[in-house]
Amino acid sequence: MNIELKENERIDDLEFKDLKIIQNTKGFCFGIDSILLSDFAKEIKKDSIVMDLGTGTGIISILLTGKTKLKKIIGIEIQEEVANMARRSVCLNGLEKKIQILNENIKDLTKIYEKNSIDVIVTNPPYKKDGEGLKNEKETKVISRHEVKGNLEDFINISSKLLKDKGEFYMVHRPERLVDIMELMRKNKIEPKKLRLVFPKINKEPKLVLVKGVKNANPFLKIEKDLYIYNEDGTYTDEILRIYNT
Amino acid sequence: MNIELKENERIDDLEFKDLKIIQNTKGFCFGIDSILLSDFAKEIKKDSIVMDLGTGTGIISILLTGKTKLKKIIGIEIQEEVANMARRSVCLNGLEKKIQILNENIKDLTKIYEKNSIDVIVTNPPYKKDGEGLKNEKETKVISRHEVKGNLEDFINISSKLLKDKGEFYMVHRPERLVDIMELMRKNKIEPKKLRLVFPKINKEPKLVLVKGVKNANPFLKIEKDLYIYNEDGTYTDEILRIYNT
Repeated sequence: MNIELKENERIDDLEFKDLKIIQNTKGFCFGIDSILLSDFAKEIKKDSIVMDLGTGTGIISILLTGKTKLKKIIGIEIQEEVANMARRSVCLNGLEKKIQILNENIKDLTKIYEKNSIDVIVTNPPYKKDGEGLKNEKETKVISRHEVKGNLEDFINISSKLLKDKGEFYMVHRPERLVDIMELMRKNKIEPKKLRLVFPKINKEPKLVLVKGVKNANPFLKIEKDLYIYNEDGTYTDEILRIYNT
Repeated sequence: MNIELKENERIDDLEFKDLKIIQNTKGFCFGIDSILLSDFAKEIKKDSIVMDLGTGTGIISILLTGKTKLKKIIGIEIQEEVANMARRSVCLNGLEKKIQILNENIKDLTKIYEKNSIDVIVTNPPYKKDGEGLKNEKETKVISRHEVKGNLEDFINISSKLLKDKGEFYMVHRPERLVDIMELMRKNKIEPKKLRLVFPKINKEPKLVLVKGVKNANPFLKIEKDLYIYNEDGTYTDEILRIYNT
């Protein structure tokens, strides 16, 4: 397969089922949050129609085709050059039949897709509030990291509209936004059902939260056991090694 | 000091600053949740006016007089016989000047106290929804454990009314209610600022959540490092030993 690489792009081997991904070394590269979210969502049922809001490099969509038996995943990316790169990664892996990359603003999705039509939504949205922190980054990074084009409520509200009754929602985000997440999910009829905190190592504060919600479900949250990234000696924990390889 | 003990009552030594407590062996005895909440709230400032909603045996009020330099703590208990027992524990410790036990329904507190008048509220409310689970227990236990006389929203709503601007709210509850807790706190203008999960031991699911909120504060949640009760070998962790003794 002859895939064109643009300036500052390189192909990385995901070391999982021979999957590869194109990343822009000067742009936004995927992080461990996407890897963990893909694993957290791996219970997605066979033949599901899945949507990945803010797909970026396409990492979550690509990994989920390897980790689940989903029927189709639609990755939504607002930035044209990033969407284009993700599309080339899809081709590189020969996954054109499973993954569709759309260059759209998530706010326009209800004009394109019917309401109550999607089985599962996964999302790794921008973490920072618009205006929060310094934005002396490249514009593509700013849009990926800050809520300039869509905020947390937009991501949750659109998900609620698109999801079927009892459809599943998986998100990774920052611990300091947990109250916003829970309040907005419930307000938008996606009941938080499962929460997992991710810690760099034991006796540290968590750095990420993984949340699963179900549309129109009854309230009852299950907080799962912690997920640690590193052992005390700085090596990866067994769980992280498992996540990277299965 | 000559304190009357009723049937099934006994005096337990708290093994902390010579404090003692009366408990009814057939009624509801305090648990580790109250001990942990008292420690979680030990940053209460000098000379604070504190209220303990649903004080039960009085354990939290009694411990907080030892752990902090609060000026006064008012323990509210709806059950007359339990309030009476707590009052005798206060006498037993000679703490009548610091602790006042009131036999009231929390819902009536705004008739007794001025709004925006309390510095800090601590509460270990009933965990279970009314009608949830079997209630083949003694009535005093049912009232302590189930939301028959006041539910989570009542506890939070009353707290919000009584607390001063920037007043602090400390609560222990169950993980499965975390979404309710966060939604209701924010709805009632007590912003969740600190969350700590309590685990029986490492690699287990959490059994309790400790939450601190501040009235009218800005959103930003800090999730603290985990609190483990037991080591892998079944002995208490160093932190639990520290909590029991300081």
